Amino acid sequence: MRLRLGALPLLADLRRPDSRPRRDDVAAGLLTAALLLPQALAYAQLAGLPARAGVLASLLPAIVYALFGRSRALAVGPVAVAALMVAEALARHAPEAALVSTAAVILAAEVGLLLLLLRGLRWGGLVALISHPVLLGFTAGAALLILLSQLAPLLGLALPRAGPLATLQAVVAALPRVDPLAAAPGLLAMLMLLARPLWAAALRRARLGADAIDTTLRTLPLVVVLLALLAVALLPEAARARLQLVGPLDWAAPAVDLPALADAGLWRALLPSAALIALVAFVESIAVARVLAARRREAVRPDAELGALGLANLAAAFSSAMPVAGSFSRSVVNAQAGARTQLAGVIAAFAVGALALLGSGVLALLPRGVLAAIIIVAVVALLDWRRAAEIYRYDRREALALAITLAGVLLLGIEAGLLVGVLLALGQALRRTMRPHITALGRVPGTEHFRNPRRHAVEQSPGLLLLRVDESLYFANIAAVEDRLEAELAAAGGPAVVRDLVLVLSAVSAIDASAEEALEAWAHSLEERGLRLHLAEVKGPVMDRLRQGRLARRLEGRIHLSTHAAVAALEQDRGAAAG
Amino acid sequence: MRLRLGALPLLADLRRPDSRPRRDDVAAGLLTAALLLPQALAYAQLAGLPARAGVLASLLPAIVYALFGRSRALAVGPVAVAALMVAEALARHAPEAALVSTAAVILAAEVGLLLLLLRGLRWGGLVALISHPVLLGFTAGAALLILLSQLAPLLGLALPRAGPLATLQAVVAALPRVDPLAAAPGLLAMLMLLARPLWAAALRRARLGADAIDTTLRTLPLVVVLLALLAVALLPEAARARLQLVGPLDWAAPAVDLPALADAGLWRALLPSAALIALVAFVESIAVARVLAARRREAVRPDAELGALGLANLAAAFSSAMPVAGSFSRSVVNAQAGARTQLAGVIAAFAVGALALLGSGVLALLPRGVLAAIIIVAVVALLDWRRAAEIYRYDRREALALAITLAGVLLLGIEAGLLVGVLLALGQALRRTMRPHITALGRVPGTEHFRNPRRHAVEQSPGLLLLRVDESLYFANIAAVEDRLEAELAAAGGPAVVRDLVLVLSAVSAIDASAEEALEAWAHSLEERGLRLHLAEVKGPVMDRLRQGRLARRLEGRIHLSTHAAVAALEQDRGAAAG
Repeated sequence: MRLRLGALPLLADLRRPDSRPRRDDVAAGLLTAALLLPQALAYAQLAGLPARAGVLASLLPAIVYALFGRSRALAVGPVAVAALMVAEALARHAPEAALVSTAAVILAAEVGLLLLLLRGLRWGGLVALISHPVLLGFTAGAALLILLSQLAPLLGLALPRAGPLATLQAVVAALPRVDPLAAAPGLLAMLMLLARPLWAAALRRARLGADAIDTTLRTLPLVVVLLALLAVALLPEAARARLQLVGPLDWAAPAVDLPALADAGLWRALLPSAALIALVAFVESIAVARVLAARRREAVRPDAELGALGLANLAAAFSSAMPVAGSFSRSVVNAQAGARTQLAGVIAAFAVGALALLGSGVLALLPRGVLAAIIIVAVVALLDWRRAAEIYRYDRREALALAITLAGVLLLGIEAGLLVGVLLALGQALRRTMRPHITALGRVPGTEHFRNPRRHAVEQSPGLLLLRVDESLYFANIAAVEDRLEAELAAAGGPAVVRDLVLVLSAVSAIDASAEEALEAWAHSLEERGLRLHLAEVKGPVMDRLRQGRLARRLEGRIHLSTHAAVAALEQDRGAAAG
Repeated sequence: MRLRLGALPLLADLRRPDSRPRRDDVAAGLLTAALLLPQALAYAQLAGLPARAGVLASLLPAIVYALFGRSRALAVGPVAVAALMVAEALARHAPEAALVSTAAVILAAEVGLLLLLLRGLRWGGLVALISHPVLLGFTAGAALLILLSQLAPLLGLALPRAGPLATLQAVVAALPRVDPLAAAPGLLAMLMLLARPLWAAALRRARLGADAIDTTLRTLPLVVVLLALLAVALLPEAARARLQLVGPLDWAAPAVDLPALADAGLWRALLPSAALIALVAFVESIAVARVLAARRREAVRPDAELGALGLANLAAAFSSAMPVAGSFSRSVVNAQAGARTQLAGVIAAFAVGALALLGSGVLALLPRGVLAAIIIVAVVALLDWRRAAEIYRYDRREALALAITLAGVLLLGIEAGLLVGVLLALGQALRRTMRPHITALGRVPGTEHFRNPRRHAVEQSPGLLLLRVDESLYFANIAAVEDRLEAELAAAGGPAVVRDLVLVLSAVSAIDASAEEALEAWAHSLEERGLRLHLAEVKGPVMDRLRQGRLARRLEGRIHLSTHAAVAALEQDRGAAAG
């Protein structure tokens, strides 16, 4: 396949004559950068990586996505949940501090390759594997884990990484030892971020318009960062030594350990984590892209996104960064600030790169507590209790899946929790198809309509039983269907009363080989009891398949176009026999 | 729960006045025993266990099932596929010869406990997890593995146990070393078993009836065993030493190593294998029970069978045997020989026990090659190529699942192959629901029927689009459904032409929270384009749920009972607007 530059979505967008508003893109890019820089530093901290990894993940990967991605406002780069998953994978498979950066690169490479593999297979449908309740429970669990992991840095404590409960215990045990000075930056930053309504009120009093207030407040994390830098710079050296600082961004340091990078065992060990990070990165990016696309009447093509996200993660690996995905908070800022094309993403990347490069000496003074405050305030927004309550009202079983996923993430870890949730939701979906709705039918007098006798006044022909099955028939439900059909037959008086049984298949879109075999055996067993099985309203594709099997041969002449035709034929039959 | 003896199915059966024909049960039991004794010895050999384990698995477990089981002709005891799975589990987790018997007991105990746990949870529906094509592929793969594993014993070779390919290579490499005398018993036994048509012809010439011929030939394995024992007994000691013999059945030997039995690590290591053996034992027993029950107009209750099979496996553990299940070949013999109750199973167990105990000195002389021949001839019957060809004609994708399961068993081992098959079939079932059938509708003139315009002459109201979705809506298909609905809307002229869009939900039995949320968002997006979404023919249970959500609030007054009512209301509406 030859790559034509003109085929790149961004270049195509920029060449369109109606894509005038490039100024909007520049403004949106700069505003996004103001959020991106603090988040890049913060999510690197969350992943347990040097700050550099976060900044690098914001540069080349964002530009690669901007070139190849089709979502015009999606902001790709470091994100909180993926950062937490990276931290968990690193803690398990590369606990040595010297190896974390290398392991993160391997993860990014594997995530990129897996996404490209899925692209090659056109498995974009995979995005549908996670139900909304499971995604909600997973996100809430991840948010709580993230919050817990940032308590120690928030308070200026240096504690070893541990499980959620152990971390909480360690933090509580360390509370008496908290150095007020070390805790001050984090707590003050948190107060400033939480005081957002106060700032908004102040700005309203200053007669700013709603949009301007919104835009101004989006730079709040950057303002907090700048104020913190200023405060730390003014501190005397002795006081500064008591703070946990980000430290110098070692651009020159060799991030990757080459022997470890060539260690096939490490690649194998990290692969399951990479697969789950890829799934989450893909699902979350598509979810964000869909929200953005709905506002602009655009469609999201999951297969195309797989390719662009895969390339962005490969770019992350090549720039010694960490896995990337579409960020909800930054994408929303980007879109609301008026981004029309991915030019905004390119601008944001360059702006962050310039800020980080020029200001790396200054950024070294940033207290980790400030980043912890930014992370905590960001992830609390991920807890969507209102939607959870709605789901509880709508369907208790789905609320249970949400709760189990949440508990799984908290108790078993983020990867196991995600797997539990996905399998649970799929199991529930399968279970539903395993107990299909089956109803007897009778004719609404004077019409060709057939309805449930329990809900409508209908007439039923003697000796004739009409049963409608409201689900496709396949191996997992055919035994249950057969039991239900036998029960309906017994309820109708059994073979002593019923001579003909018509299965109405208007809602059956497929009959698999197992079900076909079982139905054939059942038809045979009915014949031995003096009953004839008929089919009616068999859909075209189902009939095409049935013609290849034994059931259709056994039911020769007993497959009717419509329920009405079946009843008419059988009543005539009986009339002829009686007459 | 108090156990009343009278509640035991067997005792209830025997107390019924109409259960006269106890003589039939005795005859059937003795005939089954004639097949059971050679199979018990053979499957113990297949499992890599001493012959004693097979005999013990035929005694107490069979009697326990006879007491508690509800299938009247099911013959429970050692079976080929479970024996192979035991062999694989032992080779992996208890390769030391001293531990195999103990590990087999742990497996039987775990299989029993798992089945009883499933019984407690009433998860008999689990039997539906394996589609027929997957079961066929799995069985064929297991049969081929069994066949390969018996090649060396058949030829009188003593080779170490190895993977299928390595075994084949080792056997081929060892061919020049084959001792003709050592190979003679197996090959002669094989010839005698394969010559069944010749014996049948001979018996027909002797004017025997078809039933008598059938009964006589069922004792063929026992006849082969007796002839082999006679031949070996007549051999001089020197020649006998060149044969691989079963050896003495050490009834007194302590089978179980107590420290190993108390080793929690071994229990944990064997648990996954036990879970898969339990699944296979359950699925195969139910499959056999269903075949038998269909002939007698009885129903199989999977939950009840779970309990009886669980107790039988616990009995196997207590008698230091191996996991047990319902045997297809012996159950068919038992049923055809006229077994009316499980009394036949009790008789068979006592007969085998008496034979093994009285004849244990003689049985020690049995050449392993004869058992290998019995196993090979038995498992070749498991290869159901005709049904595989039917499945291929019926559905290529299911034939592919069969082939992949077969290949998985051969290449990855029996456990991994089974998992691959189960997941594949479930994935295919899910995939089908992910691409539902959607069709536009128009009114058949002069009726209240609505049909597909592509297949019927129908009339369509201007500005009105009717779409019917033929699948329940849930998280895994809602995005695809929305795409398809948008495509149908565009095909109908889009918002420029269509003002009202009616979703006909006659085939939708469920809408989950994810789908409800997505539909609400879609209805909103349609409104913004000047289109109104309506629902029609919403089923009762679906409507009950919808009332709790946001979609029903958004569509207030736009949810119609029938398609006809929706069209009538909208046409009147439009008439009023025009008038």
